[in-house]
Amino acid sequence: MSKISTHPFEDDTLDDKLSEECAVFGVFGSSEAHLLTALGLHALQHRGQEATGMVTFDGNQFHAKRGLGHVSENFNASSMQMDELAGHAAIGHNRYSTTGQSEIRNIQPFLTELAFGEFAIAHNGNLTNAERVRRSLVDTGSLFQSTTDTEAIIHLVARSRRSKPEERIKEALLQIEGAYALVALIDDMLIGVRDPLGVRPLILGKINHSYLLTSETCALDIIGASYIRDIDPGEMVLIDQNGVTSLRISEIVKSRFCIFEYIYFSRPDSVIEKKSVYNARKMIGAELARESDISADLVIPVPDSGVPAALGYAQQSGIKFEFGIIRNHYVGRTFIQPSQDARSSSVMMKHNANSEIISGKDIILVDDSIVRGTTSRKIVKMMREAGAKSVHMRIASPPTINPCFYGVDTPNKANLIAAQHSLEEIRDEIEADSLAFISIDGLYRAMGEHSRDKDTPQYCDACFTGDYPIAPSRNFISGSKNNDR
Amino acid sequence: MSKISTHPFEDDTLDDKLSEECAVFGVFGSSEAHLLTALGLHALQHRGQEATGMVTFDGNQFHAKRGLGHVSENFNASSMQMDELAGHAAIGHNRYSTTGQSEIRNIQPFLTELAFGEFAIAHNGNLTNAERVRRSLVDTGSLFQSTTDTEAIIHLVARSRRSKPEERIKEALLQIEGAYALVALIDDMLIGVRDPLGVRPLILGKINHSYLLTSETCALDIIGASYIRDIDPGEMVLIDQNGVTSLRISEIVKSRFCIFEYIYFSRPDSVIEKKSVYNARKMIGAELARESDISADLVIPVPDSGVPAALGYAQQSGIKFEFGIIRNHYVGRTFIQPSQDARSSSVMMKHNANSEIISGKDIILVDDSIVRGTTSRKIVKMMREAGAKSVHMRIASPPTINPCFYGVDTPNKANLIAAQHSLEEIRDEIEADSLAFISIDGLYRAMGEHSRDKDTPQYCDACFTGDYPIAPSRNFISGSKNNDR
Amino acid sequence: MSKISTHPFEDDTLDDKLSEECAVFGVFGSSEAHLLTALGLHALQHRGQEATGMVTFDGNQFHAKRGLGHVSENFNASSMQMDELAGHAAIGHNRYSTTGQSEIRNIQPFLTELAFGEFAIAHNGNLTNAERVRRSLVDTGSLFQSTTDTEAIIHLVARSRRSKPEERIKEALLQIEGAYALVALIDDMLIGVRDPLGVRPLILGKINHSYLLTSETCALDIIGASYIRDIDPGEMVLIDQNGVTSLRISEIVKSRFCIFEYIYFSRPDSVIEKKSVYNARKMIGAELARESDISADLVIPVPDSGVPAALGYAQQSGIKFEFGIIRNHYVGRTFIQPSQDARSSSVMMKHNANSEIISGKDIILVDDSIVRGTTSRKIVKMMREAGAKSVHMRIASPPTINPCFYGVDTPNKANLIAAQHSLEEIRDEIEADSLAFISIDGLYRAMGEHSRDKDTPQYCDACFTGDYPIAPSRNFISGSKNNDR
Amino acid sequence: MSKISTHPFEDDTLDDKLSEECAVFGVFGSSEAHLLTALGLHALQHRGQEATGMVTFDGNQFHAKRGLGHVSENFNASSMQMDELAGHAAIGHNRYSTTGQSEIRNIQPFLTELAFGEFAIAHNGNLTNAERVRRSLVDTGSLFQSTTDTEAIIHLVARSRRSKPEERIKEALLQIEGAYALVALIDDMLIGVRDPLGVRPLILGKINHSYLLTSETCALDIIGASYIRDIDPGEMVLIDQNGVTSLRISEIVKSRFCIFEYIYFSRPDSVIEKKSVYNARKMIGAELARESDISADLVIPVPDSGVPAALGYAQQSGIKFEFGIIRNHYVGRTFIQPSQDARSSSVMMKHNANSEIISGKDIILVDDSIVRGTTSRKIVKMMREAGAKSVHMRIASPPTINPCFYGVDTPNKANLIAAQHSLEEIRDEIEADSLAFISIDGLYRAMGEHSRDKDTPQYCDACFTGDYPIAPSRNFISGSKNNDR
Repeated sequence: MSKISTHPFEDDTLDDKLSEECAVFGVFGSSEAHLLTALGLHALQHRGQEATGMVTFDGNQFHAKRGLGHVSENFNASSMQMDELAGHAAIGHNRYSTTGQSEIRNIQPFLTELAFGEFAIAHNGNLTNAERVRRSLVDTGSLFQSTTDTEAIIHLVARSRRSKPEERIKEALLQIEGAYALVALIDDMLIGVRDPLGVRPLILGKINHSYLLTSETCALDIIGASYIRDIDPGEMVLIDQNGVTSLRISEIVKSRFCIFEYIYFSRPDSVIEKKSVYNARKMIGAELARESDISADLVIPVPDSGVPAALGYAQQSGIKFEFGIIRNHYVGRTFIQPSQDARSSSVMMKHNANSEIISGKDIILVDDSIVRGTTSRKIVKMMREAGAKSVHMRIASPPTINPCFYGVDTPNKANLIAAQHSLEEIRDEIEADSLAFISIDGLYRAMGEHSRDKDTPQYCDACFTGDYPIAPSRNFISGSKNNDR
Repeated sequence: MSKISTHPFEDDTLDDKLSEECAVFGVFGSSEAHLLTALGLHALQHRGQEATGMVTFDGNQFHAKRGLGHVSENFNASSMQMDELAGHAAIGHNRYSTTGQSEIRNIQPFLTELAFGEFAIAHNGNLTNAERVRRSLVDTGSLFQSTTDTEAIIHLVARSRRSKPEERIKEALLQIEGAYALVALIDDMLIGVRDPLGVRPLILGKINHSYLLTSETCALDIIGASYIRDIDPGEMVLIDQNGVTSLRISEIVKSRFCIFEYIYFSRPDSVIEKKSVYNARKMIGAELARESDISADLVIPVPDSGVPAALGYAQQSGIKFEFGIIRNHYVGRTFIQPSQDARSSSVMMKHNANSEIISGKDIILVDDSIVRGTTSRKIVKMMREAGAKSVHMRIASPPTINPCFYGVDTPNKANLIAAQHSLEEIRDEIEADSLAFISIDGLYRAMGEHSRDKDTPQYCDACFTGDYPIAPSRNFISGSKNNDR
Repeated sequence: MSKISTHPFEDDTLDDKLSEECAVFGVFGSSEAHLLTALGLHALQHRGQEATGMVTFDGNQFHAKRGLGHVSENFNASSMQMDELAGHAAIGHNRYSTTGQSEIRNIQPFLTELAFGEFAIAHNGNLTNAERVRRSLVDTGSLFQSTTDTEAIIHLVARSRRSKPEERIKEALLQIEGAYALVALIDDMLIGVRDPLGVRPLILGKINHSYLLTSETCALDIIGASYIRDIDPGEMVLIDQNGVTSLRISEIVKSRFCIFEYIYFSRPDSVIEKKSVYNARKMIGAELARESDISADLVIPVPDSGVPAALGYAQQSGIKFEFGIIRNHYVGRTFIQPSQDARSSSVMMKHNANSEIISGKDIILVDDSIVRGTTSRKIVKMMREAGAKSVHMRIASPPTINPCFYGVDTPNKANLIAAQHSLEEIRDEIEADSLAFISIDGLYRAMGEHSRDKDTPQYCDACFTGDYPIAPSRNFISGSKNNDR
Repeated sequence: MSKISTHPFEDDTLDDKLSEECAVFGVFGSSEAHLLTALGLHALQHRGQEATGMVTFDGNQFHAKRGLGHVSENFNASSMQMDELAGHAAIGHNRYSTTGQSEIRNIQPFLTELAFGEFAIAHNGNLTNAERVRRSLVDTGSLFQSTTDTEAIIHLVARSRRSKPEERIKEALLQIEGAYALVALIDDMLIGVRDPLGVRPLILGKINHSYLLTSETCALDIIGASYIRDIDPGEMVLIDQNGVTSLRISEIVKSRFCIFEYIYFSRPDSVIEKKSVYNARKMIGAELARESDISADLVIPVPDSGVPAALGYAQQSGIKFEFGIIRNHYVGRTFIQPSQDARSSSVMMKHNANSEIISGKDIILVDDSIVRGTTSRKIVKMMREAGAKSVHMRIASPPTINPCFYGVDTPNKANLIAAQHSLEEIRDEIEADSLAFISIDGLYRAMGEHSRDKDTPQYCDACFTGDYPIAPSRNFISGSKNNDR
């Protein structure tokens, strides 16, 4: 789904992070598919907080509920509507928070009536030729009800002349370019598809006799399900009462999984492509220590996302690990900003210096990434005001210099500090005593690779390298805002 | 305020923690007193999540707003009402979440018209003779509008024949027993009072020419204010345009500050009576390691409250510190509970094992306290299912065996596992391989004392020892529920 | 309750009517007292639309619910809360709509705990010495929670040293001046009281073995109850399981019932003091025809309140009765006002001319009263634009020239057109061809009296004559707004 | 729009009326088109109370707002959104209240993007071949987002290969059967269409230089606009900056306007096809008196819809007209039903007998129609309990014996009392002393016709005669519920 987005908390300048744009989940064959889906979506809440939705099938009827806000606000034990959602198959979706007034009609899963019956679909990712496809469909008489790229897929499925739903979906996807992990539900089947390059994650799990599809393994854990395997790039799985059938929607090519999932997006307790996210972050931190160690008293993580890398850094370097910054987990919707006279400008809403720890110390701050640089600057300043003698910033990713076109909300290149400035300029801007990013090869080493394969890299790392595995559409680049009326 | 409370999240059995029952905050002399109070209350959100309120004075009029929910839901930049609250003096309150339907009339600060003018008051703590005082007031013609003990103070102030408001307040407080930190506002003065034993915290700060009162220093940090001093036990401070005047409402006796504020209630970045809460927790962890160390591969904190003690434990013992449990910070209102058939019973809503770390390891779990024992049992089980070879539980407080009568929500003695069972029985109940609590003397050593003074202990530790510094009222013990109709 | 009020509909200039300020209702001895009260309040909705409330007693506990809006929004079959209100005794109240933000704390019935137990009370009318009594109570230590005059009564009851509740109430009422119809509920008794002059109505009814108190008989009809009698002025009735006991709170004097109840406030299907309101209005219309008949083609009522008088006028005069004005019963909350350019200024939101009827005719318009004159002016203009040849306005009450201090919302004297202008000036202002009000003696004749008794009139007619039966308090007149902070 | 509906008030058995299912309104060329539309929809509120919507165009952008509830709740001066709707052209719609949870997606006007640009449409009426058209569209790849028949029209417009929007609309309508009055908006044009037989009304008006389209003239009156003419059956009008252009979408045939609009649906102050609705009702009452007069003391209207016919009856017969039934205009959402023990069963929520008038009299009750008969029975019983000596029921329409397929919500034939029972059986069922309906020819005489033209009647009177001018589709009759998923 293509939207320019901002965080709901306006202080701390968005925490200065990139943001994943969705989670998908699906179950087939459990008498409590709706409850499992609610739990799964709750575990995937970090991938999208604006809205959530669920479509279920009870053998006779489809049921749908979509709402703004968190999963727990929409699907909970006190909600009358959970009973109305009871079914043996379900798909669900979390949507990332966006600018402007959110609209119910854009909340997934979508449910619509096609010639073969009801069809529900939910999508994580972004289509790069969505505008062109949409225009062509409208010109020939299709009515769009949402402003999402996902809807183009549905129209293509609706127009397909194939008889079997899975063939219709395949035919539709052949006309589509981009990154996607899809879950779809028809009356007797749960369907999952991953794009040909496998940019976005999709995982198969099982509990008792039910199969599950999920963006991350942490959603398996919350229901006690076991991990079976990652869906392959270009693979479509059909899950029905006979079990799992696998089809291919494209030839097998080398996958290009999004490396930022390991750096920041995914939950640390998730395991993707058999790699622990927590361990990957620790290894990145350790590699960062090897590349750019420096003498200091303390390693301080920027909470929460910098914690595993900081711990890896501390263990590798032997420098003491301390929580020098405390995060307030209660989040304000809209920041109250007293005037400069009334309140010191260096304070932050969500982070506070643990001055007793920091005062008089040389410290290494570890964060996972720098996007705009605004939060880093505030945090360094806060550290100094708390008495730090020197502040050395270490970043557990290479400089972010390019936008993502595959479902991640990235600021304009003009707002990516590393796209505009040299290392020394950034250091100066954030007022750190020293600054280092992990190198791109260091990142690949931390991921267990010998080095980055320059011809066909092992991951999608376009945000660091500009090496886009799927050509972004001209329309899309210049006109992404038109996508959302 | 005396209420039996439950947490809003029903899984993970309340996290099995005791709960502080309120925060207070006050400012005098800033043109943006209302904004500073909103930020201060936000920083104190951990002390009460059910409701929040603010009363301000703009030189002509008092303004009040009270509402259920978090500070950021009630006081934010998009709220029209912030402008209506503009004033140069303000007090605010966060209220702890309670059972049943919450009532607006119980949300503080209270604002009422007395013979001398408007009078606003907010209270953290609990009065032990509130029922007796209330009964006597009702019998002689006072009408109570709330079910809080705080209101009794207001009636006593209203009935006082003294002319000065501060003398009326003093006269009222002399009829009251219990623990309290009060902030009050009249038209030209902010007033703060701490009970004679100083059980609950109250701190004086300053920003520019404005003075502030707050339950914790973290609320000073969020506005960039500086710490001046803790209000003394039995002290009343009068803050007006001439600055701060100090009176005594009782003779000076040895203070009995609540030791649980250091163990769990306060934010780790707060400093109370000049001691860093974070450091105190680390010292407790270190002392725990000294008292009950054991050979293991990893020290794992039970997040979030066990983290500083675990780090102290790890640093003292030299055992590797790892995040073996990941916490989901998105909280569900009401837990969805699939049946046993559909979902494994050992899984939790907010905690997930980081299996890649734990598998095959001997681990030491560090938590700050055990109240009912239910969460501990689940977490130990989760660790085993994630592959831990052995699980050793270490608790950074002595066994909790007595209820608190001074403003902390404690379960009945029957539900305090340590009040009902021996150490070995508890270990058996939670299915740990070993279990140790820090000793009461170890706790005092960690706090920097040579040992606990048995005659007049340096802290209120009644929940561990039964040594109550203020005799709980008979009425109160048997009838605390009557207090809340 | 003393509040300056405006109507919720801003076009049609408030319909230019005076407004009753409340309804009361009570039941004792029915297993469905809460349901009967909901129906009774619904039938009395015309006496107050801002808010409604109910207090019930189920033999063990009191239950209360109060809410803004109409009865049907607060008490209906789909409301979960009806079951929680189940009881065998109940009192209820409708509150008139007022300016500014309404506050829950001002919604009646009030329920409070007194020395003898719970005490609930609801009030229709207005106390003329409320401010003085309130000030004296505050000065001696009483805390007021609402801004209503009703609360003063409760404090006086609370302070009484009498033992029996009914004696306490009597003692309280002896300190009070003004007009009131009260219903009160204690644990084993329903109490009703009417002020010494009987200005406001209060009626006793019965259904099966249950007794009821109500402001009007239409609330008896909706539940199929039978009328027993009007409560006497200065009478207190105690209703318990032994039936009805009557006490006197004042000596018997000639009553002064509000004559405007017959003219406009009460529902036409109600019967007060054995007189049908509908018949009274028809008789007034007939008398008006006798006093000021004129030759015309049609008698047209200004709907809805002018209808019975117009019918009486038509039947007396023999002139044809037609609905020349159609009223839109869907009421807008806030009027949308296009600019003069976009929309003709003579049109109205709630009234529309029935042009086919009016065109080319000499018409007599009959309305019940003129307060500010603004609506009359618009309606006359509308009639002319619809083609009326001549428009003769006839008013079924004498000129309204004085404010009411007994519970009716009257504009300032400056806004009462008849207080500022002569008959001819008013006619000119509303642009009618002729204008006549019924005379004060004509009004009394229509009510079946020989003439108005000048020394002690048979009714309270102060709004027409300035002859106030209870001296309005100085404070009240000048400071009525202070009553509502 | 085809929905089985029930009234929101459950007592008084739905008032036992048929219900119109929608209103449409449109303006072109006023700088305050959005405000005029809000007022127009407010005046048309009686044609649909469930939901309302508006689409406007400001020269650059389309704006849309749709919401459940009344016009005044959605479009009012305090609504921020009115400014966002500012435009020089607008269309609006009121939707009739339906069973079950209403859905935003079904609220009109619909706004969608077609190949030629934005297209908005609103519809009053019902398509008889909607299901067949919908099925065919779905089978060839169209996605339906609503459950309304209106959407089929949009898809047909979208699929048309014509270039001009008006030609696309005409092509679409040629594939559609049924009754409709449509308003549509494109970027430079307002379009109105009436079905070939003119079953539903559509009227052209003008204010200043702006043209308006409306279902009834009362919406012209509220803005002070003048009536120009009724749109002809089978006519399409195009309104743009050059004025009004007229096209034909079908050949001219004799019109079949819905006669029930005169009997009950339209507001009495509206004028349709140059006939005053009020006068038509009075003429029907007079004819009814001629056909079935009887000696009695009083003519009593069943309010509100029976009033004009009753007045016509009284004037014709010379029997005195009195308001013997008073209606409570405050409507409860959900009826509270005490048990039989607690409340008399003969009472009603909205109607009350005016006993003082009725007692001891022979009365003639006049109502506009009987659908199920349930309310009539209750009202007759209420009259008797109020003391009526005899009750003669006279009905100002012929017996309703057939469902409507053209946009009126009719109960199943099984629930139409006159379809199931003889006149004498109905009289017996409602317990009247006598009962008469106007004859079908009497009705036509009252409408100014010599008699009903049996071959091609002057009106659609299918509900009385079964003579359907448009053949109802097989699908539609058996499967109307399928239309609404």
